[in-house]
Amino acid sequence: MVDILHRVGIKSSVAEVYAALTTAEGLAGWWTTNTQGNGNELGGALQFRFGAGGFDMKVLDLDPGRRVLWEVVDGPEEWIGTQVVWDLDQVDDHTIVLFNHHGWKEPVEFMHHCSTKWAVFLMSLKSLIETGKGAPDPHDVKIDNWN
Amino acid sequence: MVDILHRVGIKSSVAEVYAALTTAEGLAGWWTTNTQGNGNELGGALQFRFGAGGFDMKVLDLDPGRRVLWEVVDGPEEWIGTQVVWDLDQVDDHTIVLFNHHGWKEPVEFMHHCSTKWAVFLMSLKSLIETGKGAPDPHDVKIDNWN
Repeated sequence: MVDILHRVGIKSSVAEVYAALTTAEGLAGWWTTNTQGNGNELGGALQFRFGAGGFDMKVLDLDPGRRVLWEVVDGPEEWIGTQVVWDLDQVDDHTIVLFNHHGWKEPVEFMHHCSTKWAVFLMSLKSLIETGKGAPDPHDVKIDNWN
Repeated sequence: MVDILHRVGIKSSVAEVYAALTTAEGLAGWWTTNTQGNGNELGGALQFRFGAGGFDMKVLDLDPGRRVLWEVVDGPEEWIGTQVVWDLDQVDDHTIVLFNHHGWKEPVEFMHHCSTKWAVFLMSLKSLIETGKGAPDPHDVKIDNWN
């Protein structure tokens, strides 16, 4: 088992970051403009669509201002059954985001790609909240020949 | 054991990317301007210095145009003894860089930070080669309250 781990600090309240992780409008501002569903209810379903496909998530845990946990229920085979965990903590003037995408069966090349791409989207989340402008798909930063 | 994995694609020849990983001038263009040492010889020593500290690496493997492997011999305690592996491959007009920083004992919060920061520096490497301008320390993209 191998995990994708990241950490960013965002100059904002935890409430603002939590909203960007639990509302379709917030999620559309940094991950993909084509986001639908309900991220603010246990068991809620979220649909994220990109040019080449997408991910369906089920909301497994919510602790307002502290934690969001999704399970991937549809998408690329390597993602199905994996979990994406967001832990938030206020440290001075930053909200610290600890990110963990775990449950990958093998450290395949696609996982390397997703690790870097998650970092780019976490920077998009930071930018959205600090400047009002994120870089969600299709305006996302391209990292390689897979996008 | 947990690894930091990344993948970027750079529109260039593998020779250019290899040079940016094995010469002090290349490394200073994307990681830290304060880079010294010999990265182009087995057993060579490299010193990378940042505002708050730095890393000393020993070159353990070199396969021109294919692989570079460093072992961390001095730096933050969590880094000592870990290995940083760069695997290069030409795919159409891209050089694909598979990055693996392995040997971490625990997935500590600092490892989360380093994972995101490596992604930012890999994008700096890509930018250096594709545009002529990287973002090495102290001009690097800040990700959190630790830098």
